[in-house]
Amino acid sequence: MTVTDAWFQGRLTELTEAECLELLATRQVGRLAYCDQDGPLAVPVNYVIHDGNVLFRTSPHTSLGQHAPSAAVAFEVDEIDDFTQSGWSVLVRGPAEYVDPDDLPTASDSRPVPWPQGVRTLHVRVRPLSITGRRLLAG
Amino acid sequence: MTVTDAWFQGRLTELTEAECLELLATRQVGRLAYCDQDGPLAVPVNYVIHDGNVLFRTSPHTSLGQHAPSAAVAFEVDEIDDFTQSGWSVLVRGPAEYVDPDDLPTASDSRPVPWPQGVRTLHVRVRPLSITGRRLLAG
Repeated sequence: MTVTDAWFQGRLTELTEAECLELLATRQVGRLAYCDQDGPLAVPVNYVIHDGNVLFRTSPHTSLGQHAPSAAVAFEVDEIDDFTQSGWSVLVRGPAEYVDPDDLPTASDSRPVPWPQGVRTLHVRVRPLSITGRRLLAG
Repeated sequence: MTVTDAWFQGRLTELTEAECLELLATRQVGRLAYCDQDGPLAVPVNYVIHDGNVLFRTSPHTSLGQHAPSAAVAFEVDEIDDFTQSGWSVLVRGPAEYVDPDDLPTASDSRPVPWPQGVRTLHVRVRPLSITGRRLLAG
């Protein structure tokens, strides 16, 4: 262990579920972790939180649209400060499901609008079975 | 589709492998996507790039230390600008492997130093089988 290790490493603390939900609502982009034929991967998507679920849009022609729904997935959101080497991360785990258009939020500003161009007809939600998170306090 | 959709959505472009490698070297934290008994998940880790591999440290007692090595994993790095709704992401896919201490970079500043406190004796590398990335240009 070097001197740097001893003096500057940060301290990890667990977040409560309430803190996790609060932090999830502060961000616009997270990473969906899912599996395709080659194993696990993670890709960024912009999302909204609605009724306690993570809601995003994709296309049925993407790898994400083909592999994520009806499977166990995870959704990761974080905020990291490289300078102070501190930050937080939240992980939502649960099944990904197609959302029937009739079940979408009625207010259009509660619906996710994909950032990239292109037709993304599928609404997908991640229904949390667990929500966990950690904060790394600067050392 | 609303007016906002039509006017402001960004354009996705594929990055070359050389661009991906360049971008990977600019960041300090990425997310390792791996599978445990409940399916895929992703957690942030700080890393270095050495000899074209992603190199990070963990503990054998963590979920990551127990499940990632000897398995197919992915490592995701991104930089997102919420205001302009643009950014880039890079995905490294390949096997995660324990690194023999004798094979570590000799220069200590080429070795990863974990940001959190605690003993993290395992060095793990992700050997890329594929490196892909995308840039989302502001609309």
